[in-house]
Amino acid sequence: MAEHVYKKIEIVGSSRDSIEDAINRAVATCGESLEHLDWFEVIETRGSIENGAVAHYQVTLKVGFRLGKPAS
Amino acid sequence: MAEHVYKKIEIVGSSRDSIEDAINRAVATCGESLEHLDWFEVIETRGSIENGAVAHYQVTLKVGFRLGKPAS
Amino acid sequence: MAEHVYKKIEIVGSSRDSIEDAINRAVATCGESLEHLDWFEVIETRGSIENGAVAHYQVTLKVGFRLGKPAS
Amino acid sequence: MAEHVYKKIEIVGSSRDSIEDAINRAVATCGESLEHLDWFEVIETRGSIENGAVAHYQVTLKVGFRLGKPAS
Amino acid sequence: MAEHVYKKIEIVGSSRDSIEDAINRAVATCGESLEHLDWFEVIETRGSIENGAVAHYQVTLKVGFRLGKPAS
Amino acid sequence: MAEHVYKKIEIVGSSRDSIEDAINRAVATCGESLEHLDWFEVIETRGSIENGAVAHYQVTLKVGFRLGKPAS
Amino acid sequence: MAEHVYKKIEIVGSSRDSIEDAINRAVATCGESLEHLDWFEVIETRGSIENGAVAHYQVTLKVGFRLGKPAS
Amino acid sequence: MAEHVYKKIEIVGSSRDSIEDAINRAVATCGESLEHLDWFEVIETRGSIENGAVAHYQVTLKVGFRLGKPAS
Amino acid sequence: MAEHVYKKIEIVGSSRDSIEDAINRAVATCGESLEHLDWFEVIETRGSIENGAVAHYQVTLKVGFRLGKPAS
Amino acid sequence: MAEHVYKKIEIVGSSRDSIEDAINRAVATCGESLEHLDWFEVIETRGSIENGAVAHYQVTLKVGFRLGKPAS
Amino acid sequence: MAEHVYKKIEIVGSSRDSIEDAINRAVATCGESLEHLDWFEVIETRGSIENGAVAHYQVTLKVGFRLGKPAS
Amino acid sequence: MAEHVYKKIEIVGSSRDSIEDAINRAVATCGESLEHLDWFEVIETRGSIENGAVAHYQVTLKVGFRLGKPAS
Repeated sequence: MAEHVYKKIEIVGSSRDSIEDAINRAVATCGESLEHLDWFEVIETRGSIENGAVAHYQVTLKVGFRLGKPAS
Repeated sequence: MAEHVYKKIEIVGSSRDSIEDAINRAVATCGESLEHLDWFEVIETRGSIENGAVAHYQVTLKVGFRLGKPAS
Repeated sequence: MAEHVYKKIEIVGSSRDSIEDAINRAVATCGESLEHLDWFEVIETRGSIENGAVAHYQVTLKVGFRLGKPAS
Repeated sequence: MAEHVYKKIEIVGSSRDSIEDAINRAVATCGESLEHLDWFEVIETRGSIENGAVAHYQVTLKVGFRLGKPAS
Repeated sequence: MAEHVYKKIEIVGSSRDSIEDAINRAVATCGESLEHLDWFEVIETRGSIENGAVAHYQVTLKVGFRLGKPAS
Repeated sequence: MAEHVYKKIEIVGSSRDSIEDAINRAVATCGESLEHLDWFEVIETRGSIENGAVAHYQVTLKVGFRLGKPAS
Repeated sequence: MAEHVYKKIEIVGSSRDSIEDAINRAVATCGESLEHLDWFEVIETRGSIENGAVAHYQVTLKVGFRLGKPAS
Repeated sequence: MAEHVYKKIEIVGSSRDSIEDAINRAVATCGESLEHLDWFEVIETRGSIENGAVAHYQVTLKVGFRLGKPAS
Repeated sequence: MAEHVYKKIEIVGSSRDSIEDAINRAVATCGESLEHLDWFEVIETRGSIENGAVAHYQVTLKVGFRLGKPAS
Repeated sequence: MAEHVYKKIEIVGSSRDSIEDAINRAVATCGESLEHLDWFEVIETRGSIENGAVAHYQVTLKVGFRLGKPAS
Repeated sequence: MAEHVYKKIEIVGSSRDSIEDAINRAVATCGESLEHLDWFEVIETRGSIENGAVAHYQVTLKVGFRLGKPAS
Repeated sequence: MAEHVYKKIEIVGSSRDSIEDAINRAVATCGESLEHLDWFEVIETRGSIENGAVAHYQVTLKVGFRLGKPAS
């Protein structure tokens, strides 16, 4: 089995609907420009409030993806 | 643009239904007595278990709100 | 009132659907072999990505349960 | 069962005698102006030194109390 | 010597000029409504960016102040 | 000298009297079913409040104990 | 209102003069190659010492910027 | 694909030779009584000193293993 | 008022009796060789277990003391 | 002396052999596409287990590298 | 190139004027009795308040300095 | 059994060869001027990069050693 190298980037998704939707939007945006996305880690969950109610969920993720081809 | 001062308070919402609902209940309760709520940060997510199943989601938030009028 | 002792174990639930569903699966699995489950604490939320979209939410919990009978 | 909202405040008690006494003094002071105190969490334990010996234990607590009446 | 109880609140000051100015604005705002302010702790330093340059420094502080009269 | 392997479990003791008593109760309960207990680490100190006064100290410990016989 | 996705990168600015100047240099460098810079968070403040005096302040920032166009 | 539940336990391996050897001893000991070991996370690295030199490396791991059969 | 410089050292006290006694022993030992001790901060509380009961409380402190004479 | 700006990226190397080899593979991969690599910081050490033995060490690093030419 | 060993000490500087000045005072005091000071890391920033305004900035640093001559 | 007091110092070892070698160099240097070294804790692992490859591993340790003679 090969020994891969991965990179992790930090990305913030936002959604009016749910925490999961904010995660999905962030992952989908990463997927537009990066291949081999492998996993995510939630770093922070926060959000904006308008008129005394939650307006957006904002979820900060680290997204890990595999680089190039294995070292062997 | 003015230079505001904000206060952050720590509040725990609970819900039988979802993490988002617990957040909304906490924010709504803040909104009953405070104006200018601006953002929230999730500090901790936990919950109670009854009969071997989740009974309540309990989400601790910091809620930030703007104080008085800007310093200039 | 009695003075109980509790144990906390660390468990990871996964779900294709939501964070709450991953929590429920982890708690339900604990409930199959342990009694007196009392509370949970979310330690980490992460997940796997397949084809550029979230495949599984993976939520690490600590689950607390009461041991034996009270010390008095 | 109802779904409550709680607030947490941060308070520092001090005592010449013990850590427990510092906690009790902080909780008692909260109890003078707040109802429905429910739990505390120790955040930090420190103290002052005079003449090469401990003068005061200073314990920072978060104290949680239930707000108003349940949301349902 | 008396054994005091202190409360800590969390406050965010902002300034176009410097981190110190943001701290001073936050402390000054606390001082308008609270007596016996005693110390502050910097919790987080962040800021907003406009046109590729720092627009505001935003500093989150905990501010500690002495409550009522000493317990003895 | 042998090279041991240890396991750590997380346990919560509670006491109406003191933090030390809560620790002792947790350790004693571990000792009823486990041998070779070697050390403990305090992870969290919290408690319940009743009628505006501390009702129970609740101390979360990690307890380390040696497994089986040394690997050599 | 649209639901944006943001990326955060980690950058270290240094300055002989002040912490604020180190922050400004880091932000300015980001601004040379990235658009829509929105906020920064100070992660770490350190520095080098020469001849027993501070030579450089080195401030690690996370800088957040908005990606592409909103998801809707 | 099925949705598994995992448990994580905390284990300390020690070795006179290297950090990797301490990790291997801890994992091997887990493998004697547990099936489906899947991953480990290093939590802490410390050690004992004798006669002014390192005597043992002591590495605390969390070891994750899959429970029972998948929930579907 | 003068602008002092302080040094903090890390010290571990142990006691068979209580957490407070372990703190006092650590502070007293510092006081034998250092002047101007000013405050302490508890960093970690742990202990040893013998025969299934707590043998020693071991408390790690940072102790702060004032250096030389004020810079002005 | 010039005042540089650095960027830090997060990268995960894996190796069947050792923690150091995993670090080297991660650094080497960075070196293929980036110049002026200057330092690394280990963020997390974990790994995969196969057949009850360590299969891969996986080490997450932050790697710092100097950007462009100094600001003066 | 030689392989050095460094020591880090923890020091608190205070200043009525600025955070940078508090850092400089702490570093300067270290420089009076130690050679080969190499770098500092800011651990904590806090301060005292008098009459509702900042009286002193108090900055806790770790200061690293090289020991003796290289091991070669 | 006696009740000892320990001191912990922070030391950074570096090595071109391995993490273990960096630890050993740091411990050996402590042993040249201090007696009764008892244990170490790894606080941070980092290193320098030259020509796109690891040049030095730099490991920050806390080293604990027993002070004077037991308090009895």
